[in-house]
Amino acid sequence: MTAPRYHITGIGNAIVDVLARTGDDFLSRHDMRKGSMTLIDSVQAEAIYGAMPPGIEASGGSVANSCAVAAMLGAEVAFFGKTADDQLGAVFRHDMHVLGIHYPTRPAVGRDATARCLILITPDGQRTMNTDLGAAVSFGIDDLDSGIIAESAVLYLEGYLFDPPAAQAAFWSAAKVARSSGRQVAISLSDAFCVDRHRGNFQALVEQYADIVVANEAEICSLFEQNDFASAAEIAARFARIAVLTRGADGSVILADGKCYEIAAAPTNVVDTTGAGDAYAAGFLTAYTHGAPLQDCGALASKTAALAISSIGARPARAALVALAPTRQAKDNAPARLHPNRTV
Amino acid sequence: MTAPRYHITGIGNAIVDVLARTGDDFLSRHDMRKGSMTLIDSVQAEAIYGAMPPGIEASGGSVANSCAVAAMLGAEVAFFGKTADDQLGAVFRHDMHVLGIHYPTRPAVGRDATARCLILITPDGQRTMNTDLGAAVSFGIDDLDSGIIAESAVLYLEGYLFDPPAAQAAFWSAAKVARSSGRQVAISLSDAFCVDRHRGNFQALVEQYADIVVANEAEICSLFEQNDFASAAEIAARFARIAVLTRGADGSVILADGKCYEIAAAPTNVVDTTGAGDAYAAGFLTAYTHGAPLQDCGALASKTAALAISSIGARPARAALVALAPTRQAKDNAPARLHPNRTV
Repeated sequence: MTAPRYHITGIGNAIVDVLARTGDDFLSRHDMRKGSMTLIDSVQAEAIYGAMPPGIEASGGSVANSCAVAAMLGAEVAFFGKTADDQLGAVFRHDMHVLGIHYPTRPAVGRDATARCLILITPDGQRTMNTDLGAAVSFGIDDLDSGIIAESAVLYLEGYLFDPPAAQAAFWSAAKVARSSGRQVAISLSDAFCVDRHRGNFQALVEQYADIVVANEAEICSLFEQNDFASAAEIAARFARIAVLTRGADGSVILADGKCYEIAAAPTNVVDTTGAGDAYAAGFLTAYTHGAPLQDCGALASKTAALAISSIGARPARAALVALAPTRQAKDNAPARLHPNRTV
Repeated sequence: MTAPRYHITGIGNAIVDVLARTGDDFLSRHDMRKGSMTLIDSVQAEAIYGAMPPGIEASGGSVANSCAVAAMLGAEVAFFGKTADDQLGAVFRHDMHVLGIHYPTRPAVGRDATARCLILITPDGQRTMNTDLGAAVSFGIDDLDSGIIAESAVLYLEGYLFDPPAAQAAFWSAAKVARSSGRQVAISLSDAFCVDRHRGNFQALVEQYADIVVANEAEICSLFEQNDFASAAEIAARFARIAVLTRGADGSVILADGKCYEIAAAPTNVVDTTGAGDAYAAGFLTAYTHGAPLQDCGALASKTAALAISSIGARPARAALVALAPTRQAKDNAPARLHPNRTV
């Protein structure tokens, strides 16, 4: 097996976020479930957008956020995800390319616009998301490049991609390529309701391919239909080699090889929780693919998540992330010289 | 003369900002003059954008920002400015409409995209702007609605609109309508280099129509070709009934009726100076059109500017602005019952 060219290759929805602050009353008026992600169509999107306060637009997407943050932390990253050939798509592609991320997916041709996620940030810092997947639903197996997956230490799959049907097939294919190339597969469960919609397929993919499963409390409980975190975590540790489980302000736990690493949440000022889990995963995977011990992977993950929470939007400022990077000169290391941690 | 329906009607460029943090070295590598606004074409815009770090997108435009902030402060506002019929244009229009701003300008038909301003924010909080006017250049006299101007206490004109040729004619026409309807005309000088490009026309418009001129130190010095602020301010007070002159961290002065009101800058944490002057003008004009004494207009202006400076982007959060609003229930007052201050 040759040394990998990329630390992380992500597959996820290519989304532009529209973030606006609002009161709790806005959520109740529009029947939104606080903290969740709801899929909406373009008609619903126009209705919600028309009622939303002025916002800011910023590139988003769960695994795309993780990839962007990992790249700012010094990882070599590739990403697959479908935009449309429109202005918001150009914004998304720009924001990946200028971070040095290899992002070869061609924009979709057709009527659908680039996916938008309408995010309402309530005064408690919670984010409530409404996603119009648009062109992202056309992502499929033809968008994969097996060569890139084979050259990546970790393949990172976004649970939200269980929603668009063509993407599921791509997941299985990508995971198979990674496995047969001696690489590792990480899966984010993304959202408890998304897990609920696709539990069987999620379980099967995790069982067959996941070296690493990344989830929060609600998601892991949903996946294994458990009421308490401890039981769900125990099952997770049997399904995947490493279970990376976040618990919000209560920190996180990493389960591997019969051990349990408890990680405290890094102290921060809660401004906007958008992207907290994505940033956590970025910190974890960056440290992990640079060969750090699991306790240190968790520590970097916590600090990275804290940065995401302390400002509006999913992706923290580059300057703050660079200060956290596992090796400040990470970008100068030829990735081929890095030895992904296979034996934690 | 009937009571006005709007406190402020603005005419300005309809622009979406792309804001990114960068080092001073980015400016020098791209031959940018820190703190200024440079007009660029779409080819230059692509080159700069391609080199810029990931950013956020947010509605901008100088007078558009003032209008948005004034609306959040409780003023009744109308706005004229040209977008294209594209995604960024839809963002700009959304952000005006949801603030209750009457914004009737139809998007341009044609190849040009909605104007973009590429803004580099350096570690000192200064913003350096590069504007591709795109569809905004097609704004012209046909886009005006005399009825709205006649029903507005103050017409607020953006100096930057001296650059696109068709807009100059619209300015003269709009100012004439305002004057003949017994309304007031305010002019922002926008940028010292813009004043330099169009000094003769600026002077003529200010002399003939300006009740209020809004400028910073460099702009007013450029307009009257003076080396020192005191001399420029003295001339300004002869040209316009009210001269509203900002001096950054040194606060501002308002000259009217032979009096000089000195206003201290409100204390703030400098994060991003984008829109500081626009927010200042919004605070001033909102208080002014609600009948406040000039000293109080300056005080609200300073506080509003401080809010703009303390976060990324030109337009402060609504919640913070609402707390400053001259009358917290301003939106509940029928504008017809407000008596714009004619006799300060």
